[in-house]
Amino acid sequence: MRRGLVLVVSAPSGAGKTTLCQRLLATDHQISFSISYTTRKPRPGERHGVDYFFVDEETFQRMVDQGAFLEWARVHDHFYGTAQEQVEEVLKSGRDVLLDIDVQGALQVREKLGQDAVLVFILPPSLEELERRLRARGTEDERTLKRRLSVAREEIAKATEFDYLVLNDDLEEAFDHFYAVLKAERQRTFRRPDLLARFS
Amino acid sequence: MRRGLVLVVSAPSGAGKTTLCQRLLATDHQISFSISYTTRKPRPGERHGVDYFFVDEETFQRMVDQGAFLEWARVHDHFYGTAQEQVEEVLKSGRDVLLDIDVQGALQVREKLGQDAVLVFILPPSLEELERRLRARGTEDERTLKRRLSVAREEIAKATEFDYLVLNDDLEEAFDHFYAVLKAERQRTFRRPDLLARFS
Repeated sequence: MRRGLVLVVSAPSGAGKTTLCQRLLATDHQISFSISYTTRKPRPGERHGVDYFFVDEETFQRMVDQGAFLEWARVHDHFYGTAQEQVEEVLKSGRDVLLDIDVQGALQVREKLGQDAVLVFILPPSLEELERRLRARGTEDERTLKRRLSVAREEIAKATEFDYLVLNDDLEEAFDHFYAVLKAERQRTFRRPDLLARFS
Repeated sequence: MRRGLVLVVSAPSGAGKTTLCQRLLATDHQISFSISYTTRKPRPGERHGVDYFFVDEETFQRMVDQGAFLEWARVHDHFYGTAQEQVEEVLKSGRDVLLDIDVQGALQVREKLGQDAVLVFILPPSLEELERRLRARGTEDERTLKRRLSVAREEIAKATEFDYLVLNDDLEEAFDHFYAVLKAERQRTFRRPDLLARFS
């Protein structure tokens, strides 16, 4: 059996990351999102162990102290984290994990997982096009929009630390390139002792 | 402009390498075979600089001494070689080069080109299936066939030094995986200063 991999995807807001990730999950059934830990309360219908692992802040903090998280972040007043042990279990079962996280988190994962992680950065065609897409959403005031663009510029500057760049100009082409990375990485020799074992 | 790459493909005889390479060249127009140097005489219709660079043994030997070849080999009474300078020119123009060579040659190319080379090894489903395919060709006597199988076993033992393994069980699937390697490698961050330059 091959060893699974963790496909870590980051992008500035508006680059189309969510669309590409959802399409990947719908297309390929050997990869799935990992279930995160969170300190926020479950919303109606959400189930522990299915949507999230819901824990209190004390538990979360203890896991942070133990180094149990591959990566974690605070979003507004809540904490969210990906447990390393849980991801390891999936990799051992020969399946892959998709992580949709920010640049900082992606670099934490690389640090912890080395070659088990594959880092993909989704690029918009240009900052002008990114601005146009964000304006088209019409959901943000001018100040928030300017801040997003400034954050985008900083994130793109860190893209050099990622393994692959996927330019999202045309969505079909971008998806084809994104999926190619997953298909190719599954065939890396060091992940495929199963193939060579057929001949020994 | 992106920097091109050299896709180096090796496989035991009967694994389906030629079919996969020809299909890749027919499908994708940013990659092409490099034109080899050879000491054999041109056959009717073959043109110097188009099919091969036809040179005499003295010239060929001088190129070997100068380290001008990325890889070279003797096949029967003739020499064949790939000139490094010629490949470099193609890479600089942002196009890719396909090299269909043996395991020894592939490792020479890796030594000389480092990250500019991407090594793919095509695997048959099993040695039994390889034997069945070679017998189906019906072109070889028992002794030649046994030798081919023994060489195949030795070559497969060196596949661990390649970057990617492509299992050729079902041809459609194998081609999809093979082409995914090329598409993914074209997006490696270190080959794409052109994409990041859009944001600086």
